[in-house]
Amino acid sequence: MMDAKEYLKKMSAELDGPIKSYIEDEDPSNLIEATRQYPYRGGKRMRPAMAVACCGAVGGDKSKAVPLAVAVEYIHNFTLIHDDIMDGDEKRRGMDTCHVVYGEPTAILAGDALFAKAYQIMADLDIPAERIRDVLQYVSKAVWDLARGQQMDVNNEGHIVSEDVYIETIKLKTSVLFAAAAAGGAIIGGADKKAVEAINTYALELGLGFQMFDDYLGIAGDSSKTGKSVGNDIRKGKCTCMVTHAIRSIKDPKVLEEFKSILGNMDATDEQCQRAKQIMQDAGSIDYALDLAKKKVENAISVIQFLPESEDKEFMIALARYAIDRDVRFGCPLCRSR
Amino acid sequence: MMDAKEYLKKMSAELDGPIKSYIEDEDPSNLIEATRQYPYRGGKRMRPAMAVACCGAVGGDKSKAVPLAVAVEYIHNFTLIHDDIMDGDEKRRGMDTCHVVYGEPTAILAGDALFAKAYQIMADLDIPAERIRDVLQYVSKAVWDLARGQQMDVNNEGHIVSEDVYIETIKLKTSVLFAAAAAGGAIIGGADKKAVEAINTYALELGLGFQMFDDYLGIAGDSSKTGKSVGNDIRKGKCTCMVTHAIRSIKDPKVLEEFKSILGNMDATDEQCQRAKQIMQDAGSIDYALDLAKKKVENAISVIQFLPESEDKEFMIALARYAIDRDVRFGCPLCRSR
Repeated sequence: MMDAKEYLKKMSAELDGPIKSYIEDEDPSNLIEATRQYPYRGGKRMRPAMAVACCGAVGGDKSKAVPLAVAVEYIHNFTLIHDDIMDGDEKRRGMDTCHVVYGEPTAILAGDALFAKAYQIMADLDIPAERIRDVLQYVSKAVWDLARGQQMDVNNEGHIVSEDVYIETIKLKTSVLFAAAAAGGAIIGGADKKAVEAINTYALELGLGFQMFDDYLGIAGDSSKTGKSVGNDIRKGKCTCMVTHAIRSIKDPKVLEEFKSILGNMDATDEQCQRAKQIMQDAGSIDYALDLAKKKVENAISVIQFLPESEDKEFMIALARYAIDRDVRFGCPLCRSR
Repeated sequence: MMDAKEYLKKMSAELDGPIKSYIEDEDPSNLIEATRQYPYRGGKRMRPAMAVACCGAVGGDKSKAVPLAVAVEYIHNFTLIHDDIMDGDEKRRGMDTCHVVYGEPTAILAGDALFAKAYQIMADLDIPAERIRDVLQYVSKAVWDLARGQQMDVNNEGHIVSEDVYIETIKLKTSVLFAAAAAGGAIIGGADKKAVEAINTYALELGLGFQMFDDYLGIAGDSSKTGKSVGNDIRKGKCTCMVTHAIRSIKDPKVLEEFKSILGNMDATDEQCQRAKQIMQDAGSIDYALDLAKKKVENAISVIQFLPESEDKEFMIALARYAIDRDVRFGCPLCRSR
C-alpha cells in the first residue's frame, strides 16, 4: 500500500519549481511580491498534485497538466488572500498574512492578479483547443461556487444550520476547486466525458470525507496529536455533522438545552466541553459522523475503480484512505488551515 | 457624421438585456444580489459596445460578440467593486457602494464571483475553440495589467511622477480592458492577427486620449458643464500630463515653488487654484496636454483606416472624435466615475 503522505511530498517537491516560475519581475514590485507571497511559501500542494495524478491516471502525459496544476494553486492562493482579509486573520501558517504585510488594497489586488494569471496560464495549455473550454468550465464554475460557499459560511456564522446546508457549504468551500483540479487533469489527459465526471465525483467525495474526518478529529482526536483541544470547536460553536446529528437526535429536552448552552459559549470550561462531547457520544453523533466520512471515501474509491492500474490510481486511492486514517488534524491537505 | 453619444446610448440599451441575463437565482441570495448590483444598475456600457462594434467592423456576426460584451462588463464591474473597497468610497453614481450595502466580505466575494462568471461565459463563446485562447489571452492579460495599474495608482498617491509613469498608469488602469474588449470583439469577428492588433492599438490610444482630455477638462473646462471646479484636481494634487509638463518646463524657481505649494494643498483658495492654472497656461502645459490627447485620438483613427466602411467603423471613429470634442467631464465613458 502506497504511503499517500510520502508520495504527496515527492510530488509537491516536483511542482515547487513550476509554481515559482510563472510570475515574472514587473512593475510595480510590491504587487508582484504580494502575488508571490503565498504560492512561493510552499505548502501541501494538494490541488496541483491531484491535477497531475488524474492526468496520469487516465493515461495522459503528466507534464501537460503541470500548467493547470500551477493555475489551480494560484487560484487557491488568491482565495486564501481574500479569505484572510475577510476574516481579519493576521497569521497564516505562523507567518504574517498578505494584507498585514502589504496592506489591504495591495492584498485585494494581489488576489485579483493571481486569478488573472491563472487564466493566462490556462489559455496556453498545450492541448487541443476544444478541451480548453472544458477545463475552463470546471475551473470557473468552481471559483463561482467557492465564492458561494464562502458566503454561506459567512451567513451561517453563529447559527446551527441543517446537515444539508452544512454539507453543501463545505462542498462548495473546499471540495469544488479540488474536484475541478482533478477533472481538469483528466481532461488534459484525454479522458472522455464520463471518466472526467467520475474523477470529478471522486474528488468531490474525497474532499467531503477529508473535511468530515477533520471535524471528527476535532472532537474525538487525540488532542496531543491534533494540536487542538476538544473545547476548540465546541467553544467556537462550529457546526459539524456531529452537532447537527446531536441536535436532531437528543430526545431529552433538558439535555438538548444543556448541549446548546455549551455550544458556542466561549467561556465554557473544559469540563463543560467534555460534557458536550459526552452528549454527542451518547446520541451516537460521533459514530455517525465517522461513518459518514467513511462512506464518502468509500464512494470516492468506488467511482474510480474503472481506471486501469497505475501508480497514479494507487495514489488516488491511498490518498482517499489517508483522509480517514490519520490522527493529525493540522496537516489536513484540504482544510484551509492557517 | 454619426453622433457617437446617441449611437452608444442605443447600443447600451440593446446590451442591457443580455447583461442582466447571465446571473441566475442561486443560494446564497445576498451574494447573488451583490454580484448583480453594479452591472444591473446600467451605465455607459462603453466596453461592451466596443466589443460588439469591433466584431461588426471586421465583418463578423455581432450577436456572437454579445457574451464577450457581458463578460467584459462583469470584469469591469468586479474591478469597480474592489476599487471602492480599496478607496473606502461610499458612493458610486450617487448610490451606495457594494461594500456599504452588503459589507466588505460579501463585496470582496461578489467581485471574485463576477470575475469567475465572466470566464464561465467566455468558455462558452460560439466561436472556433482555437480563437477562445486568443480572447482569453487578451482579457486575462488585461486584468493582470489592470491590477498593476491600480497598484501603481496607489503607489503614486501624493507623488508627482514622471509623464511616462503617469501615462503607463492610466494605460494599465483604464485602457487595457477597453482594448481587450475591442480586440476580443475583432477575434470573435474572425479578424486576422494583424487586424486584431491594430484594433487593440486603436482602443488603447483612444482610452489614453479619453483620459487625457478628461484631465484637460478638469482644468480648462467650463466648470458649469464639467460639474467640477478647477480647484478640484489641483487641490487633490492630481498628477496629469499638464502637471508633469509644468514641473519640467517652469524656468523660474520661485514660480515652480509657488506652483508646488498650491498643488495638493487641500486648503488652497479659489484664487490660488486659478493662479496654478495660470502658471500651467503660461508654461504651455494646457496646450501641451490637449495636443497630446488629440495626437492619441488621431493615431487611434489612423490605425483602423484599413477597415472597410461600415456603420461600426463609423462609430469607432465618431467615438474617437467625441473623446476630444466634448465639454462634459462627468459622463466620460471610460473614466471610472463615481
